[in-house]
Amino acid sequence: MKSLPTIDDVRAAAARIAPHAHRTPVLTSASLDEIAGAALFFKCESFQRCGAFKFRGACNAVMSLSDEVAARGVATHSSGNHAAALALAARIRGIPAHVVMPANAKAVKKAAVAAYGADITFCEPTLAARESTLASVVAATGASVVHPYNDARVIAGQGTAALELLDAVSGLDAIVTPVGGGGLLSGTAVTVAALAPLVRVVAGEPAGADDARRSLAAGTIVPSVDPVTIADGLLTSLGDLTFAIISRHVEGIVAVSEDEIIHAMRLIWERLKIIVEPSSAVALAAALAGGTAGARRVGVVLSGGNVDLETLPWSRPFST
Amino acid sequence: MKSLPTIDDVRAAAARIAPHAHRTPVLTSASLDEIAGAALFFKCESFQRCGAFKFRGACNAVMSLSDEVAARGVATHSSGNHAAALALAARIRGIPAHVVMPANAKAVKKAAVAAYGADITFCEPTLAARESTLASVVAATGASVVHPYNDARVIAGQGTAALELLDAVSGLDAIVTPVGGGGLLSGTAVTVAALAPLVRVVAGEPAGADDARRSLAAGTIVPSVDPVTIADGLLTSLGDLTFAIISRHVEGIVAVSEDEIIHAMRLIWERLKIIVEPSSAVALAAALAGGTAGARRVGVVLSGGNVDLETLPWSRPFST
Repeated sequence: MKSLPTIDDVRAAAARIAPHAHRTPVLTSASLDEIAGAALFFKCESFQRCGAFKFRGACNAVMSLSDEVAARGVATHSSGNHAAALALAARIRGIPAHVVMPANAKAVKKAAVAAYGADITFCEPTLAARESTLASVVAATGASVVHPYNDARVIAGQGTAALELLDAVSGLDAIVTPVGGGGLLSGTAVTVAALAPLVRVVAGEPAGADDARRSLAAGTIVPSVDPVTIADGLLTSLGDLTFAIISRHVEGIVAVSEDEIIHAMRLIWERLKIIVEPSSAVALAAALAGGTAGARRVGVVLSGGNVDLETLPWSRPFST
Repeated sequence: MKSLPTIDDVRAAAARIAPHAHRTPVLTSASLDEIAGAALFFKCESFQRCGAFKFRGACNAVMSLSDEVAARGVATHSSGNHAAALALAARIRGIPAHVVMPANAKAVKKAAVAAYGADITFCEPTLAARESTLASVVAATGASVVHPYNDARVIAGQGTAALELLDAVSGLDAIVTPVGGGGLLSGTAVTVAALAPLVRVVAGEPAGADDARRSLAAGTIVPSVDPVTIADGLLTSLGDLTFAIISRHVEGIVAVSEDEIIHAMRLIWERLKIIVEPSSAVALAAALAGGTAGARRVGVVLSGGNVDLETLPWSRPFST
């Protein structure tokens, strides 16, 4: 296994991405505090560049390459926020980004990646096709692969959100994040374990995609098989790096139902007046489901805000 | 006519509401700047208490009453954000709030006002019924009437948003707000005329409710008759105070179509990742329609975020 990122890596990432990434605001709501029975501090990565925390990790990876290696470009396969984030980071550095996307990826995702100037290669919508296509692209270009989460540079970058949160809010008892592949959760854990070891790190995960919870229980990575959830950023399995960190430092992973996710998402929209994607709401849902019971001051990381505004889970057609 | 509020009144209001109101953030978006061809600075009153700038004026009015007068309570007739704002300000001061609402007001509005502990009297949905019912309530209680906009204390309170915006952003060339009854626009004008007289003050108004634009053109108040617009916060006519200020200090009022309002609202949701009501979007729509042409740095006041999430103007039913 490659070596795990440390708090020094997180600090280095923070310095590296500072000129490019937003220091996102922390919002609060008296009415949400009342509902939760605790003071909640929402770290709004929905306001991050590209609309998600993913830019932190992708930017750190891109900016840490030597000029010689960087010149050959970066590459990844992704149908989501990581692809857009990597494309933007590469554009900022002035190097090529090669993105392998399944042909059935949503049009809005394709458009976002294309808008940042990435070179897109489409493939069949299977993991095998994605990996073999990526291998061909790398063979042809010499580009460096930046994995969406199982990469120490990416994990260190994601850990900078918790660094800012601890800096902005004193006396936290717990921090809760969503977990998919585990980049955000493990980055948060690295930061918190080093700087505020008494702060509990907890994650929320959709019950329909609860491979991380089962992995933690089994003591080994349980792959995600046929996950079904509205939280489309949380479908992936843990990697060896993220699993190693999460096993060591995370107190627990709470599975939440689709109804709980939608309810939490709607609360955030209504009370905080901000737009978050379902994956973000999983963190609040976990807190409301008792995942941070006993904590009086809870940091909640809202992972992103890239949602299709046409199809809201509670909407009906408009009429005047 | 009662005397017009001055910048000293705005400064006094700022001090008076400071312990209670939020100093709302100013957000920016590189992609919206590109679309507008100018640097836009969004003053987000959608994050204000009660979800709208209305809390500034209501709070200033409530906090400026003597203890003796305050003890008899405050009263208004409103079906919108002002009622909720007045109810909250009264609750903070610990005095009664009497709100006259049309019986057909939206359930969500009734619930919001009731949640802040106001005493609600329902009446027929006509202006005559609202005014006569309010008169009875005042006769019975001795409460002080706080008009939603044609009140110097309210106008001065609304002017504090521009005070904060000028403080937060240097070198503005123009500020654009929506206009309904004119409280926000006239408060903004009082502040800007005194502190930054070279900054142009411009308003957006729905074409289907463009009485303020016509009033400015006619040189006298033209009442709003049967207004039809999605921007339900902008249906009212100007009052003598707001008209007097607007005639003196406002450069122009731009009428925008329903399509332009919905397009601007969607841009704000998508690019700023925040929830605003249609009335807020009227300000951006006016800027995009050329209302601030020539200005390189434009302040845009987003008036509120209280929108029915069930019925978005662009939504279709959700399906997985």
